[in-house]
Amino acid sequence: MKQKIRIGMVGGGIGAFIGNVHRMAAALDGELELVCGAFSSNAEKSKESGEALGLPANRVYPDYETMMLSEQQLPADQRMQVVSIVTPNHVHFGPAKMALEQGFHVICDKPVAFNLEEALELQQIVEKTGLLFALTHNYTGYPMVKQARQMIRHGALGNIRKVVVEYPQGWLSTQVEASGQKQAAWRTDPTKSGIAGAMGDIGTHAENLAEYITGLKISELCADISIFVPGRLLDDDGNILLRFDNGAKGILFASQIAAGEENNLNIRVYGEKGGLEWHQMEPNTLLVKWLDQPTQVYRTGVGTLYPETLAHFRIPAGHPEGYLEAFANIYRNFAFCVRARMEGVEPDPLYTDFPSIQDGVRGMRFIEKVIESGKSDQKWLPF
Amino acid sequence: MKQKIRIGMVGGGIGAFIGNVHRMAAALDGELELVCGAFSSNAEKSKESGEALGLPANRVYPDYETMMLSEQQLPADQRMQVVSIVTPNHVHFGPAKMALEQGFHVICDKPVAFNLEEALELQQIVEKTGLLFALTHNYTGYPMVKQARQMIRHGALGNIRKVVVEYPQGWLSTQVEASGQKQAAWRTDPTKSGIAGAMGDIGTHAENLAEYITGLKISELCADISIFVPGRLLDDDGNILLRFDNGAKGILFASQIAAGEENNLNIRVYGEKGGLEWHQMEPNTLLVKWLDQPTQVYRTGVGTLYPETLAHFRIPAGHPEGYLEAFANIYRNFAFCVRARMEGVEPDPLYTDFPSIQDGVRGMRFIEKVIESGKSDQKWLPF
Amino acid sequence: MKQKIRIGMVGGGIGAFIGNVHRMAAALDGELELVCGAFSSNAEKSKESGEALGLPANRVYPDYETMMLSEQQLPADQRMQVVSIVTPNHVHFGPAKMALEQGFHVICDKPVAFNLEEALELQQIVEKTGLLFALTHNYTGYPMVKQARQMIRHGALGNIRKVVVEYPQGWLSTQVEASGQKQAAWRTDPTKSGIAGAMGDIGTHAENLAEYITGLKISELCADISIFVPGRLLDDDGNILLRFDNGAKGILFASQIAAGEENNLNIRVYGEKGGLEWHQMEPNTLLVKWLDQPTQVYRTGVGTLYPETLAHFRIPAGHPEGYLEAFANIYRNFAFCVRARMEGVEPDPLYTDFPSIQDGVRGMRFIEKVIESGKSDQKWLPF
Amino acid sequence: MKQKIRIGMVGGGIGAFIGNVHRMAAALDGELELVCGAFSSNAEKSKESGEALGLPANRVYPDYETMMLSEQQLPADQRMQVVSIVTPNHVHFGPAKMALEQGFHVICDKPVAFNLEEALELQQIVEKTGLLFALTHNYTGYPMVKQARQMIRHGALGNIRKVVVEYPQGWLSTQVEASGQKQAAWRTDPTKSGIAGAMGDIGTHAENLAEYITGLKISELCADISIFVPGRLLDDDGNILLRFDNGAKGILFASQIAAGEENNLNIRVYGEKGGLEWHQMEPNTLLVKWLDQPTQVYRTGVGTLYPETLAHFRIPAGHPEGYLEAFANIYRNFAFCVRARMEGVEPDPLYTDFPSIQDGVRGMRFIEKVIESGKSDQKWLPF
Repeated sequence: MKQKIRIGMVGGGIGAFIGNVHRMAAALDGELELVCGAFSSNAEKSKESGEALGLPANRVYPDYETMMLSEQQLPADQRMQVVSIVTPNHVHFGPAKMALEQGFHVICDKPVAFNLEEALELQQIVEKTGLLFALTHNYTGYPMVKQARQMIRHGALGNIRKVVVEYPQGWLSTQVEASGQKQAAWRTDPTKSGIAGAMGDIGTHAENLAEYITGLKISELCADISIFVPGRLLDDDGNILLRFDNGAKGILFASQIAAGEENNLNIRVYGEKGGLEWHQMEPNTLLVKWLDQPTQVYRTGVGTLYPETLAHFRIPAGHPEGYLEAFANIYRNFAFCVRARMEGVEPDPLYTDFPSIQDGVRGMRFIEKVIESGKSDQKWLPF
Repeated sequence: MKQKIRIGMVGGGIGAFIGNVHRMAAALDGELELVCGAFSSNAEKSKESGEALGLPANRVYPDYETMMLSEQQLPADQRMQVVSIVTPNHVHFGPAKMALEQGFHVICDKPVAFNLEEALELQQIVEKTGLLFALTHNYTGYPMVKQARQMIRHGALGNIRKVVVEYPQGWLSTQVEASGQKQAAWRTDPTKSGIAGAMGDIGTHAENLAEYITGLKISELCADISIFVPGRLLDDDGNILLRFDNGAKGILFASQIAAGEENNLNIRVYGEKGGLEWHQMEPNTLLVKWLDQPTQVYRTGVGTLYPETLAHFRIPAGHPEGYLEAFANIYRNFAFCVRARMEGVEPDPLYTDFPSIQDGVRGMRFIEKVIESGKSDQKWLPF
Repeated sequence: MKQKIRIGMVGGGIGAFIGNVHRMAAALDGELELVCGAFSSNAEKSKESGEALGLPANRVYPDYETMMLSEQQLPADQRMQVVSIVTPNHVHFGPAKMALEQGFHVICDKPVAFNLEEALELQQIVEKTGLLFALTHNYTGYPMVKQARQMIRHGALGNIRKVVVEYPQGWLSTQVEASGQKQAAWRTDPTKSGIAGAMGDIGTHAENLAEYITGLKISELCADISIFVPGRLLDDDGNILLRFDNGAKGILFASQIAAGEENNLNIRVYGEKGGLEWHQMEPNTLLVKWLDQPTQVYRTGVGTLYPETLAHFRIPAGHPEGYLEAFANIYRNFAFCVRARMEGVEPDPLYTDFPSIQDGVRGMRFIEKVIESGKSDQKWLPF
Repeated sequence: MKQKIRIGMVGGGIGAFIGNVHRMAAALDGELELVCGAFSSNAEKSKESGEALGLPANRVYPDYETMMLSEQQLPADQRMQVVSIVTPNHVHFGPAKMALEQGFHVICDKPVAFNLEEALELQQIVEKTGLLFALTHNYTGYPMVKQARQMIRHGALGNIRKVVVEYPQGWLSTQVEASGQKQAAWRTDPTKSGIAGAMGDIGTHAENLAEYITGLKISELCADISIFVPGRLLDDDGNILLRFDNGAKGILFASQIAAGEENNLNIRVYGEKGGLEWHQMEPNTLLVKWLDQPTQVYRTGVGTLYPETLAHFRIPAGHPEGYLEAFANIYRNFAFCVRARMEGVEPDPLYTDFPSIQDGVRGMRFIEKVIESGKSDQKWLPF
């Protein structure tokens, strides 16, 4: 009888946005099950959350240290195998480090750490322990993002010349953090979020998406970073010029004061032979543009798609999958890799694709460089 | 410790489209768990499916009769509480009847039965037993469908005058059933599907959606029903004029030979004061049109929405939810109602909304009337 | 020195919607010039309109009879060559008949006449005189409509199975005619519009477009015709089932009470191999759908288009042309044909395409049959 | 009897793209007529073009100098009043200067001159002569661009924070200029186009549109300017960070190597209270976004629009106007101003809006600064 991969969660008490997302993503494909958690830094809240989630009381812990030490004592076929970290940025490093050192695989929300130093140390620990580590840059989990990546990798667009990646949101157009909105509060608090606001929260998604789809690396950048809302302590907007290692040029902007925008991550890539356009808010569509031929509307489930694309959706054409399914792809692939390791086999390469600690380090470096560039008179900073 | 509602499944062996959809929908919100199943009429296949799903061998049954009788013997806190029926149409009635008679709640795929007589008998059994029964007309689970329904119910559009509901698909444009495609094979086989092909498979969804959103009842119809693909035994296209009980007029078309269409269910409703437009393939958007005012783009998570809408999505604006989440809304609401009944309380009325046996009976009547009209020279048939 | 083709206009006084459209359409390509007119049944208004249009006073006439007789007296190189008729429906036949009998070519707004009898008589006169006659079913002037027609004619979609043509407008959702709105007033007045309201005003456009694009003929129809607005005398909505001469089935609806709709003429055609979709409000786009291949977005000016398409737009891809340009295509083609006849040569067949008196007769027959069907209990009426 | 305003054209021989656009734009509204021209630097070609356009031979000139001097000799009620200059950039200054000095009003294509010096000299001449001068930054002629401008001017969005303006084209993705494509040849030739390629040809449109809509002035910029196509002599792509005089930040990109893009000028503006989005390729739509309220789809002809908007379209909602109509708005407004001056009255302020010599100077300064910034290591250059 096949057993599900067992997860313990750090953070994500009832009512948390991203904690619930991780739980739904883990549950969707029936490959993982939540077996324990330390859902809050407040022990009482952790307990309440565990109850609401239907966990037995003895698997709900007052803090992550207790969780990890206690789970270690359980029989191997009962204890958690994976720690899922869904706390604010300043509480990523501690539990991730401890989990790895205690022998647990880790799934961590992004950005991977509070600063670059933490990220680099985590990278060392991951490499030393050889354990599995996934970062939930969930947008790369969409099937049409996989398709875009494969089309470029296989040369459909020719050499890439131009990349435009945008992440406009409008929800921080006013100082909502002052009214106690919890999601806004920690994201705009330098002691919890780190040196960046929007650049860390969503800028890193844009950076990760651009590099993932194109297979290129950003080599230089030039940033104009702003705080528009009076009283805010961290950036809420950034416009950035990019240069890539193959000579391509690009633009990245991320904003949380783009009034009226929801969560409009999108990317356009132009090569010598054609272009691609993808919008997260309509994720099952990929526009493929050609030199003097009609644009093609690639869709999940229609026509000939790459195996990497086919491996990442569940239902037929025209039955829209969304954010949770893309998120679930990361969890499912991670579960497959954990299971393969349990069974001592190589995982199916179609299902090994999830963001890594290297992506996490790159994201932290991006944050540092972008904030530095925003303060600098030097036009181009190397990345 | 909260316990999950326990499901046993009839049909839905590994590889089945809709069985997997039901499992994901049941898992998403952590309210239900699959505890047993009779996944195939072939006992060996049932066993394999159960194993792949990680069920203990003693909860995987060779047929649904055995499942129901065996589960009856289990302690009340272990045995299944709900039977989920995901077989082809001709195997809905048998397991549904037996499940209800054995005291299990039932979730059944649509159309509810093989013919109207079966549906009416089921309705009697549901009423007699007082058990809960849900029909997975899943498209009414979308939050923007709830919003549309509430806007009309609260009079935002004034009296409704015109309804246009369409369900174009193109996947049966050729005789794929002849090549052994399993989804196509039973849907085009009168011994498994019943008297209708497209009209039962998707026409009933359109009918259900139109009545759900408008709150009106179809009172007369006039149908032109066709088989376009040579060799096919059941309808693959239908164009239908509708009249509603308030005097509104309408059009319903459903087609599986609309070449190049995916799963493009959509509806437009026009009233005295404004109109609505919703497309299943972009389900988080609802266009609201006004007399000489700009059209408004209602979106999941944006602005002031009805409580019934808010109760049916999970994540913030711009994070698209899709088909599985809408499907999961039916499972989750059903679970809430089962739990309320276990606890002897009234369920929260916001979460009691799922399609019923009455919807099922109405769907079967629709099928009968539409096929009858297609063969008739009489212009209008009462419905 | 090339001379422009000279037009005299009947109706279309300053402030009239369609009169001004005809003037702009005639002017756009520099092929025709307005030289005279009888712009109103009110001689004073005609005079004022002529002045505002910069015409010399002696070419502005109190009525169309005077215009035709007076122009006849002018030297051949000065007098009008074409009469453009832009009056309400009940004043089409008189001036058209007289113009043809006096030897002038005619461009007439649609529907061609007040009733079928007038249309048939006009057809005889056109045939007898051998003069040129164009009907401004302007929507067939769009380049992407030409492209759709040619694709179907060349078999790109295979045999056609299904046609859905819609013409929703919302501007008559209230009884605006009661408030003296001039456009509404005559269109809802049986003494000016004829036996039909919406069916004549816009239903005929839909019928003409469907037959033009598919090359098929409607052979039977079944209509549900309504007056929704209290106090209105003519239909403001119609839902119609269609059957075509090749066995294709279809739906046509036209409505002026589709609240919130502007002028949303659109058509979808499905064949054995693929489908087409075109929307008048975004006219430079034609969606081409395939069986299990990505949809293609055909665009004016992009890729390989048919010569018939190329002949009907003026500026490069991405520079949108619209309603006036499509209208102008009819005037320009007509001018080319008049010029060819003057020069005694065959016109270039790429530029001879404009709606004819036969289209006009067919439109009048459509109006009669649709209204008849709306009152009939017989399901199918032959067309 | 009202007389049309008389135009003489410099450049724009038959077959030229922009010359024909100017002629159609001038003709559309019946306010101007082409009376003479020097259509080519080749006298024979000029003659042929004049013939094809139906001009009398004595009004077709071998060169613009002859045209201006000859027209001066004609009676005042016959000679041209306006010179329309539609030549490549290096032949703007000469004819514009001479026309003004000879007392003719001028309409000139953009950019206004070959370099900034010429532009500044022209500005002086315009001011000295007091004659009317229009620059055909035609995209500001669209009614929804007027609406956007007025909404911002009236404070609907609050203080503006962010502007994103894009002008992607793909037609120069390969070295088409090497194959003799005429439009490409002069645009990529520094002796005809000036110091910039894409930045002058389309970048200036983007700059002009952004300043026109927002009412703000760019105060600083930081550019990354590229030549991607081997062998090309002028820029074909540019990514530019903008800062505005009110503290707003922005991005401007213009590209002619954005493979698969047609002529996709678009702009988004975000203020404290809301945002706007407009796309030239669907010009009759303006998206208006709000903080936590549904987005509104403003459309030409629907709802309450500003008088400045209403003054710039011709036909009802849903009858799309396009590029030529926007272009014609400039000609028509210019004609109204010329006529008002002839009549010694003030022109109606609703119709005085067309791009000026000041816009032209600003465009030339933009070109110079952008090219300078592209070569500079200094992050911000003042503008």
